[in-house]
Amino acid sequence: MKGDLMSISERLSALRREMKQNGVDMYYIPTDDYHGSEYVCGHFKCREYISGFTGSAGTVIVTDSYAGLWTDGRYFIQAENQLEGTEYVLNKSGETGVLTPSEFILKNLGKGVLGFDGKTVSARFAEKLISDIGREHILSVDLMDKIWEDRPDMPCEKGFYLDEKYSGKSFGEKVSEIRSLIGEAHGDVFLLSSPDDICWLLNVRGRDIPHNPVILSYAAVSENTIVWFVDENKLTPEIIDNICGVEIRPYEDFYEYIGNIPSDKTVIIDRSRLNFEAVIRIPEGVKIIDRQNLTLIPKAIKNETEINNERAAHIKDGVAVTKFIYEIKNYPEKYDELSAAELIMSLRSRQEGYIEESFEPIIAYGEHGAIVHYSADENSSCPLKAEGFLLCDTGGHYLEGTIDITRTICLGKPTNEMKCAYTAVLRGHLALADAKFRYGCRGANLDILARAPLWELGMDFNHGTGHGVGYLLNVHESPNGIRMRFIPDHDCVLEEGMITSDEPGVYIEGKFGIRTESLILCRKGEKTEFGQFMYFEDLTLVPFDPDAVDISQMTAHDISLYNDYQHRVYDVIAPFLTAEEREWLKEQTRPLSVQ
Amino acid sequence: MKGDLMSISERLSALRREMKQNGVDMYYIPTDDYHGSEYVCGHFKCREYISGFTGSAGTVIVTDSYAGLWTDGRYFIQAENQLEGTEYVLNKSGETGVLTPSEFILKNLGKGVLGFDGKTVSARFAEKLISDIGREHILSVDLMDKIWEDRPDMPCEKGFYLDEKYSGKSFGEKVSEIRSLIGEAHGDVFLLSSPDDICWLLNVRGRDIPHNPVILSYAAVSENTIVWFVDENKLTPEIIDNICGVEIRPYEDFYEYIGNIPSDKTVIIDRSRLNFEAVIRIPEGVKIIDRQNLTLIPKAIKNETEINNERAAHIKDGVAVTKFIYEIKNYPEKYDELSAAELIMSLRSRQEGYIEESFEPIIAYGEHGAIVHYSADENSSCPLKAEGFLLCDTGGHYLEGTIDITRTICLGKPTNEMKCAYTAVLRGHLALADAKFRYGCRGANLDILARAPLWELGMDFNHGTGHGVGYLLNVHESPNGIRMRFIPDHDCVLEEGMITSDEPGVYIEGKFGIRTESLILCRKGEKTEFGQFMYFEDLTLVPFDPDAVDISQMTAHDISLYNDYQHRVYDVIAPFLTAEEREWLKEQTRPLSVQ
Repeated sequence: MKGDLMSISERLSALRREMKQNGVDMYYIPTDDYHGSEYVCGHFKCREYISGFTGSAGTVIVTDSYAGLWTDGRYFIQAENQLEGTEYVLNKSGETGVLTPSEFILKNLGKGVLGFDGKTVSARFAEKLISDIGREHILSVDLMDKIWEDRPDMPCEKGFYLDEKYSGKSFGEKVSEIRSLIGEAHGDVFLLSSPDDICWLLNVRGRDIPHNPVILSYAAVSENTIVWFVDENKLTPEIIDNICGVEIRPYEDFYEYIGNIPSDKTVIIDRSRLNFEAVIRIPEGVKIIDRQNLTLIPKAIKNETEINNERAAHIKDGVAVTKFIYEIKNYPEKYDELSAAELIMSLRSRQEGYIEESFEPIIAYGEHGAIVHYSADENSSCPLKAEGFLLCDTGGHYLEGTIDITRTICLGKPTNEMKCAYTAVLRGHLALADAKFRYGCRGANLDILARAPLWELGMDFNHGTGHGVGYLLNVHESPNGIRMRFIPDHDCVLEEGMITSDEPGVYIEGKFGIRTESLILCRKGEKTEFGQFMYFEDLTLVPFDPDAVDISQMTAHDISLYNDYQHRVYDVIAPFLTAEEREWLKEQTRPLSVQ
Repeated sequence: MKGDLMSISERLSALRREMKQNGVDMYYIPTDDYHGSEYVCGHFKCREYISGFTGSAGTVIVTDSYAGLWTDGRYFIQAENQLEGTEYVLNKSGETGVLTPSEFILKNLGKGVLGFDGKTVSARFAEKLISDIGREHILSVDLMDKIWEDRPDMPCEKGFYLDEKYSGKSFGEKVSEIRSLIGEAHGDVFLLSSPDDICWLLNVRGRDIPHNPVILSYAAVSENTIVWFVDENKLTPEIIDNICGVEIRPYEDFYEYIGNIPSDKTVIIDRSRLNFEAVIRIPEGVKIIDRQNLTLIPKAIKNETEINNERAAHIKDGVAVTKFIYEIKNYPEKYDELSAAELIMSLRSRQEGYIEESFEPIIAYGEHGAIVHYSADENSSCPLKAEGFLLCDTGGHYLEGTIDITRTICLGKPTNEMKCAYTAVLRGHLALADAKFRYGCRGANLDILARAPLWELGMDFNHGTGHGVGYLLNVHESPNGIRMRFIPDHDCVLEEGMITSDEPGVYIEGKFGIRTESLILCRKGEKTEFGQFMYFEDLTLVPFDPDAVDISQMTAHDISLYNDYQHRVYDVIAPFLTAEEREWLKEQTRPLSVQ
């Protein structure tokens, strides 16, 4: 979709009038909503409205004589097309010589005033700007709302209560747990603005954002009260019945509530997650404790019920994805990328408890597989043939948990280059899933296990090896993760019950992409005089593709890990298949051995 | 040596009188000198003077009614003996329920004033205290100097100039490099108080501290001047000739110099390394940039000359240690721990360019090996027999570099438990030395390679896997290191030219200890479209002990790494041995193969 040229120019003029009236020299418009969500709903698409650029990531900066859009490599071509004919300058983030938005501000603001809607940036981000340019050069003001006439309403679909048979813990238990953390931190009020944390705490889910089953809302938890700032129309009687004791107030009242916190109180906030507007409303005198959301670790550590449900969800999803692979491997020419994506969604939707896709599926054939964030559309979707790799990174939300899985399917006879790369990725994937480690390790300690087989060949992949996954919540959930770089807020000590993805890959531009992703559950192993040891349980149950394996690259240990996994997949998944599928799976999961 | 009871009590009384006169309610005495040195010379042994406790680590806190010593597990027994009969309370650091010194201060200071000599604590430490108890509750004052009548003088031995054939880079080149870093940081004056950084910069070495070949001094580097605050008596004409342009001022003048920095200047300091007294002397208005010493990375990246010298030093040292192992393995009963330590020192001292031991040797027989910081003395030293393990962690300074090596020698026939543990340690050691990794990795990314074989067996070791090593400087040199925990200042990205130790171990209390340590040099490997790859070159050339290897635990790859290493040791070291030694080494380094 191309932005309407006339209206983009009109919108810019309207914005500039508002900037002038409000004493703003430069206006900053990020992609974010008020909650730091990974995806945003229509109401928050200000950056798209002002620029016409529809990509999922981007930042706009406007002055009286300049309009610039920043986006990354995934979107350069799309942005060029969508900005064509407008006055927008495209700033290609990551290219040499291209300033970041922050650098652009520092260089060009001079003695002027920078404006932005303080609800759309984190306190951490704004405070970094303040330390660079001074508080007097920053104004938090929402100018977009003044000029956006047909702005979509906030979403208003009903949420639902998540029964304890799914959540495993009552809302009351969770609140007690958080209250004791508040006490330990010597705080009075814990302010929370991330919808997934709030939904976890209250055992509710919603439909406010595609792929994120949350209700946009805020919360304040103290020793004796819980206030939930939420549009009451989204609540069902069942929700209300199950969160008794929670005071429900209108969504927008959060800021007024903050402004009324007595000055002898201590609030606990997470400056990386709470927005700037909320923080500047905190009255003078109130003591602020800045720490990672208190809900983060308890939410990441799945309880026994959640874990058992996740196991069940992975069987259902394993059946759907295995059926999908059977169909695609046997009849590739019946599909193109888009219809393959429909097929997998339709197979999932036949499973009980299925809710929706947990993210936009990546079904990438041949050279498309090398584009890490590829998403097929009607222009790009290409027909499959009995050759090359099909990379399938898809997922679903079930009442029993959230799935994220990637398998790379070999269609036809692979080249040696394909087998070599596939086998290296597979070896890394298996080695990470097989890790045994002492308690205290973080993802950065384990990352090398997934990369070493690629490094041996002078190969690598430029993305993280693993991310935390929510329970019927965000498919990307911190603070657990597995990366080469240690990032404090996304690389916590791996605790029993955390679920992380294991997804090494390799991408050969113009040729193919390979990624192999399973979800792995951190568990306690033996405790010896030397400490507590941990290991992973593989939750995902979908076969690897033996056609692409070069067994000569594998050690005896690699082969035994591979065979054990394939064997387990057959045992668990076969009973749910048709006779033809089952026969095929038997062959697909046959043990490999050195000739 | 036991403290003189009478005098300890008198000393405490004298200190308390001074505390009273100076308005100090609690006085804090750490082990440190003014430079954050790992070891301190006699002049700085205030903690030993006031308590009688001679261990290498400890902290004293004194109030009008309390005297406490904190030390760690290595010294509990020694401290109990040395404190006996005094009023000192021994606080066993690390034991449950024992407060740290900082916690003790917070709990007991109340509204009183805490005193300490601000030159003996880092700015970082003091500022943390200030944030906890307030600036008005802290007084920087050296009370020990007032009461210590026969305080030893500062050391006054001559230093020496390190020729460019050893340092590889002129003092002028190094200063230019540091000046461009000062410019990049937009600083005017870089204040430096760590002696090893200063000695590296000026290409000088000294004899002020046993095992640390440095001259205690301070320096200030700016665009046009270098001021070296040092006792001029330590300088030789050769030193003075080679650092022309450097202004030499008395050691104590550093603080006055700081006090006179014009208020429009910007100083660059490292708050973790510069002492608190220096920082409080910085005049108001002067802008402070806090960053890791600018010399740290350039010093850690050894230049080509240093690297070639290190290779030569490791051959010389390899010859000495190999001869030592030959002697000990063949005639264990001729030695006890102390005489074995003398033997290795005497073998090293016969090598050209040898200067001194780079640390107190650890020669630990049998169960002594399980005491990680064991140091034999006349009471503990035990005779060796033809059984068990002898753990030998020793090192030397040569003009060509600094050595740190550990080998565990098997005397007689090992038990299965000994072989199992030795082989696991060896496998981890070999795997880390064999790492191939993408540029950007830190030690915490690689640590698992050394630990995984132990973790498989439910074993581990409670110390770091590796530390940086100076060039004829401190044997423990940051910022490179290899540890499970990521510690920002000690876990930098591994750069080509950095030398790190590789020293996994395992310690079975009451039975034995095993450690295998080599120094490994980080080097650039291939550069592919996926990035720059790195690997390690093993500098150390001393055989492992085949008698303790259980080949059935090893993979084919482990065996080939082992055989390659042993083969290389034979090739390089054999020419320097006697016929008997050579014959023995041939057998000792024979290739192992699966039966």
